[in-house]
Amino acid sequence: MLAFVVQRQNLKRTNKTRPRLRPGWALVRARMAGICNTDLEILRGYHNFCGTPGHEFVGEVQEVAGVSAAVEKRWIGKRVTGEINIPCHALGFRPLCRFCKRSLTRHCERRKVLGIVAHDGAFAEYLTLPIENLHAIPDSISDEMAVFVEPLAAACEILDQVNIKQFREAAVLGDGKLAQLIARVLRTALPRVVMYGKHSDKLALARRARIETKLVLGDVSDLRRVKDNLALLVEATGSPTGLALAQQMTEPRGTLVLKSTFHGAAPVETWPIVVKELTVVGSRCGRFEKAIALLRSGKVDPRPLIARTFPLHEASAAIMFAQKSGVMKVLLKKEA
Amino acid sequence: MLAFVVQRQNLKRTNKTRPRLRPGWALVRARMAGICNTDLEILRGYHNFCGTPGHEFVGEVQEVAGVSAAVEKRWIGKRVTGEINIPCHALGFRPLCRFCKRSLTRHCERRKVLGIVAHDGAFAEYLTLPIENLHAIPDSISDEMAVFVEPLAAACEILDQVNIKQFREAAVLGDGKLAQLIARVLRTALPRVVMYGKHSDKLALARRARIETKLVLGDVSDLRRVKDNLALLVEATGSPTGLALAQQMTEPRGTLVLKSTFHGAAPVETWPIVVKELTVVGSRCGRFEKAIALLRSGKVDPRPLIARTFPLHEASAAIMFAQKSGVMKVLLKKEA
Repeated sequence: MLAFVVQRQNLKRTNKTRPRLRPGWALVRARMAGICNTDLEILRGYHNFCGTPGHEFVGEVQEVAGVSAAVEKRWIGKRVTGEINIPCHALGFRPLCRFCKRSLTRHCERRKVLGIVAHDGAFAEYLTLPIENLHAIPDSISDEMAVFVEPLAAACEILDQVNIKQFREAAVLGDGKLAQLIARVLRTALPRVVMYGKHSDKLALARRARIETKLVLGDVSDLRRVKDNLALLVEATGSPTGLALAQQMTEPRGTLVLKSTFHGAAPVETWPIVVKELTVVGSRCGRFEKAIALLRSGKVDPRPLIARTFPLHEASAAIMFAQKSGVMKVLLKKEA
Repeated sequence: MLAFVVQRQNLKRTNKTRPRLRPGWALVRARMAGICNTDLEILRGYHNFCGTPGHEFVGEVQEVAGVSAAVEKRWIGKRVTGEINIPCHALGFRPLCRFCKRSLTRHCERRKVLGIVAHDGAFAEYLTLPIENLHAIPDSISDEMAVFVEPLAAACEILDQVNIKQFREAAVLGDGKLAQLIARVLRTALPRVVMYGKHSDKLALARRARIETKLVLGDVSDLRRVKDNLALLVEATGSPTGLALAQQMTEPRGTLVLKSTFHGAAPVETWPIVVKELTVVGSRCGRFEKAIALLRSGKVDPRPLIARTFPLHEASAAIMFAQKSGVMKVLLKKEA
């Protein structure tokens, strides 16, 4: 099958044998995949991952293994997306790790992660996942929307971590792909969301989703001069200086959610966190159910974030395009 | 009156006129004062404070102004300590700032802070504070214990910020003065507290208070090799590298309380906070009532932490002594 692998900071086209299935796993034919900033980080060496990247996808179940006829019937041919963290249970480890025992499978100590850690991802014709990771996509959600379920779930995670009802407004620092989804999700729960960004075209996208925007001219360090005091701030700049910046903008006793997983250390003075008694909440993957419900309800429409769709066989060109400054979501589509 | 002021990274002895009182304020004759790491930071330029430092004290109310005879009678001659944050209300600002309106006076936007921000402190014969900041000290609590109320309250703040009942144990990173108080306070609420430190003599002090200890040999960076996974970790190393270190030791979905107010930036990689979904809680001053109750009950005895007591007029020598490596709490005592 056609598959792309990481090689020398780019994607290289290869031919792989179709992956074999463990019992309880499914073979999924990829229909569409999204390129995430994490994929760009992987090209730069994140997790030393050398396999096939791609963790945002929608596909069709082609085959399942070691399950009853009823389960098989339920899944074969279904349009699905899938949770990317593969926990102890599905990898055959017994006893379960202490996080899996507490049902925190997204934090499994032995987890593999689709297209990120030790398990091949969706920039290929086929991928495999445990059946328990799959989520069926309702007919009313198109492929273009379904491919956003994974990052949208990551945005929704904030609603599971923060008691949103105690806030009247929120700010999002950054105007990139993830920041846009986060602002849209927060806007479903709050009457006012303000996005701070450097790109007027990206901010315009946000305004069309009823998000207020503030253009920060010049260098990102100009944000230091922002005098607004914010009770709930989400840092999604994708920059290593995000924490240093965001803690200055968050008001005393405020909540600062960190979403950027940029690799690299930035100098941070921690005394403002202490003196202002901030609560800093790290936030990663979220529940897919909530994201699917938001897409289905029409409350969040991610389609305006799509910059361009490439055919799968042009994945190398697509990822180079995705690395260009200002480019939003780039999708890969398997031709019929 | 005798008073010490910050001058060229040391304390200089001066004579000041006794401070005058605003209505609702009290003049307190200092009996004893404690030297805190923040005082050492102030000598290095923290807050550009050039007045009289000292925010840990016990004293006697000498005079009150603009209050009824009943209030006067209640306070004159009382042995007291006092909250260090002086909010809007006491400074005559109207309307109150938005934090004072929410009763978050410790975060008042216009606050002065005893011996730290724009208000002279306790390294002098007399100090002033709003009467509302004062707490009477019960007879059963000696001066040597009462002088610890302020830092002990800061340690107690953790119990107000973190739902301690969800944890079975806690770790404290650091073995200095504040770390010792924090470990003792946590030990009143948890069956197991482990202190990670570099000084065997300090760790021995902790063990006598039923705190488990782990000696970390060599450089502090050795702590990176600690393989323990901790659900609740309090960073109290007083070092700018504390956050970087502590986030590595905290387990996924764990809580990391930051207590160090060291000034200076240290390189921090923030992705572990995100990937592990840590909750980082900045923690500063706390309620005095809780600290006084702990001292009164005998559940916490800070006296073994006292390294040496100097007469007030030797404050310069005392603070030089306090700066020596390994020295615990240094006290100043006004001779009768």
